[in-house]
Amino acid sequence: NSNMKVFSLNSNLKLAEEIADHIGISLGKCTVTTFSDGEVQINIEESVRGCDVYVVQSTSSPVNQHLMELLIMLDALKRASAKTINVVMPYYGYARQDRKARAREPITAKLVADLIETAGADRVITLDLHAPQIQGFFDRPIDHLQGVPLLSDYFEAKNFDDIIIVSPDHGGVTRARKMADRLKAPIGIIDKRRPRPNVAEVMNIIGNVEGKTAILIDDIIDTAGTITLAANALVENGAKEVYACCTHPVLSGPAIERIENSNIKELVITNSIPLPKDKMIDKITQLSVAALIGEAIIRVHEQQSVSILFD
Amino acid sequence: NSNMKVFSLNSNLKLAEEIADHIGISLGKCTVTTFSDGEVQINIEESVRGCDVYVVQSTSSPVNQHLMELLIMLDALKRASAKTINVVMPYYGYARQDRKARAREPITAKLVADLIETAGADRVITLDLHAPQIQGFFDRPIDHLQGVPLLSDYFEAKNFDDIIIVSPDHGGVTRARKMADRLKAPIGIIDKRRPRPNVAEVMNIIGNVEGKTAILIDDIIDTAGTITLAANALVENGAKEVYACCTHPVLSGPAIERIENSNIKELVITNSIPLPKDKMIDKITQLSVAALIGEAIIRVHEQQSVSILFD
Ligand SMILES: Nc1ncnc2c1ncn2[C@@H]1O[C@H](COP(=O)(O)O)[C@@H](O)[C@H]1O
Ligand SMILES: Nc1ncnc2c1ncn2[C@@H]1O[C@H](COP(=O)(O)O)[C@@H](O)[C@H]1O
Repeated sequence: NSNMKVFSLNSNLKLAEEIADHIGISLGKCTVTTFSDGEVQINIEESVRGCDVYVVQSTSSPVNQHLMELLIMLDALKRASAKTINVVMPYYGYARQDRKARAREPITAKLVADLIETAGADRVITLDLHAPQIQGFFDRPIDHLQGVPLLSDYFEAKNFDDIIIVSPDHGGVTRARKMADRLKAPIGIIDKRRPRPNVAEVMNIIGNVEGKTAILIDDIIDTAGTITLAANALVENGAKEVYACCTHPVLSGPAIERIENSNIKELVITNSIPLPKDKMIDKITQLSVAALIGEAIIRVHEQQSVSILFD
Repeated sequence: NSNMKVFSLNSNLKLAEEIADHIGISLGKCTVTTFSDGEVQINIEESVRGCDVYVVQSTSSPVNQHLMELLIMLDALKRASAKTINVVMPYYGYARQDRKARAREPITAKLVADLIETAGADRVITLDLHAPQIQGFFDRPIDHLQGVPLLSDYFEAKNFDDIIIVSPDHGGVTRARKMADRLKAPIGIIDKRRPRPNVAEVMNIIGNVEGKTAILIDDIIDTAGTITLAANALVENGAKEVYACCTHPVLSGPAIERIENSNIKELVITNSIPLPKDKMIDKITQLSVAALIGEAIIRVHEQQSVSILFD
């Protein structure tokens, strides 16, 4: 590991420290602040010449600030003669803008990939992209980790009797299927229509949830409209109790209030995005992806396959 | 002008409207908002197919937000089959990070140029770059407008008796020289050293200011440390009165308070960056660059030379 260095920017310092701990090194020294006018200022405080550098940054809120921190860091590393520059993005912001749904829309997920490559990334390690197609937006190698094993193991340890894994929408069925395979459970699907962004409307349920412990799984929980209405629908249809889980806790706007007041008994999330103090409620359990990502970094660095970590 | 369209993003809507007025067209329709989690959402609400599109956006504070609005707009325009995409940046943020002053620093001004080109810009029209070398950071045509004529004309109309144009630092002498040429005045230079960013220290004055009306000129006034200390030094050295002017009123942190309490009689700025209500003080006069930029757009569109506007 002599020429491996891991740096953290501002989005997720605690996770980066856990990752470095897992690898058994200290974080590289750098200062990431802003000038008086809000422009990002980065000082890398140790040599990176000839090093394989890993930069940990989730492009979570404030997304534009965190993205620019990342791009400026890549520029600085490139000019400082790093041997390889590896971006570790536990959460990939703008992933939902991944196609033109209407005329004249941007495809910001592709733009972000282009910006990251332009700034100097040689490789990207990320987790549960909103759409796996985003891998194709990059021309460089991308390692796409999965949160399903971690979330499944947590629920497996609870030894529930009669469970069903439920996808809150059509887009998430593959993810629900993966979890169901691991937990040897059937799957259900919420058949909903969403009239506009951030507004969710639940329709009916495909699959029998009567008397069962339902586990909702999604990749992102943002305003929590979809997931809490899904939980309501499950209870109305006779589910015994409802758990929910996701990889990326965006939790913006009314999310926490909705979750608090919902039928969800426990929400299990990961630390791909840190949970600020004011969002830590009893119902929420946060699992760490540090070992998964740390192991992925070690395997990438030793040129070993990474897929073994979640297959 | 049939296939010319001018769009404004959020940084400087009023200036964009004035520019469109000058050209004699209405602004193109687009909505630039944010989703609940802070991600930028852009909808272009009219066809741009085959059009020469001009996008007005200063990357002023919040700089990362305004830059991402611009990049996402360029992506959307490119995918919407605009014929040419012309970026109009009255203020170019991150321009002061234009070289490696210390080891392992980024060159963010170059990064920004790369990002703008990657996102799809065919041309950039900008005003008073902090360093003219930034033009070379682009591989596409760049039209570099100058604010000196506008600022000089304002002071010329005052018919001062005995004036001296003063550069607040060594970097700005060329600009002071240009203004002095127009006003047929001598120049002076403040010979200062700056211990660290946003902190200014005035040393002595090159040139005789005794009994004269001194006009300080800079490109950017940010925290106003440099300019107000320069004004003090001028008064201490016998200047009769001190005026100041700049193109880009960044005016962050303690700037307004410092200007209010300074020896500066009047500060003349442009609207390359809008002045929020709480920064409008009696001492400040804001001149509009709308005619200059509008004329530049017309000339670019008609493939005529632009330099005539400020030579
Ligand atoms: N940050 C965001 N918050 C809410 N909706 C978004 C966001 N980004 C993109 N979208 C919209 O969400 C939709 C994609 O989500 P999905 O259908 O779940 O893949 C698209 O219509 C986007 O316009
Ligand atoms: N937004 C900013 N605010 C204050 N200082 C900055 C900013 N951006 C860059 N700098 C610093 O300002 C110096 C360049 O300013 P100058 O010497 O006037 O060209 C460099 O040392 C930069 O590190």
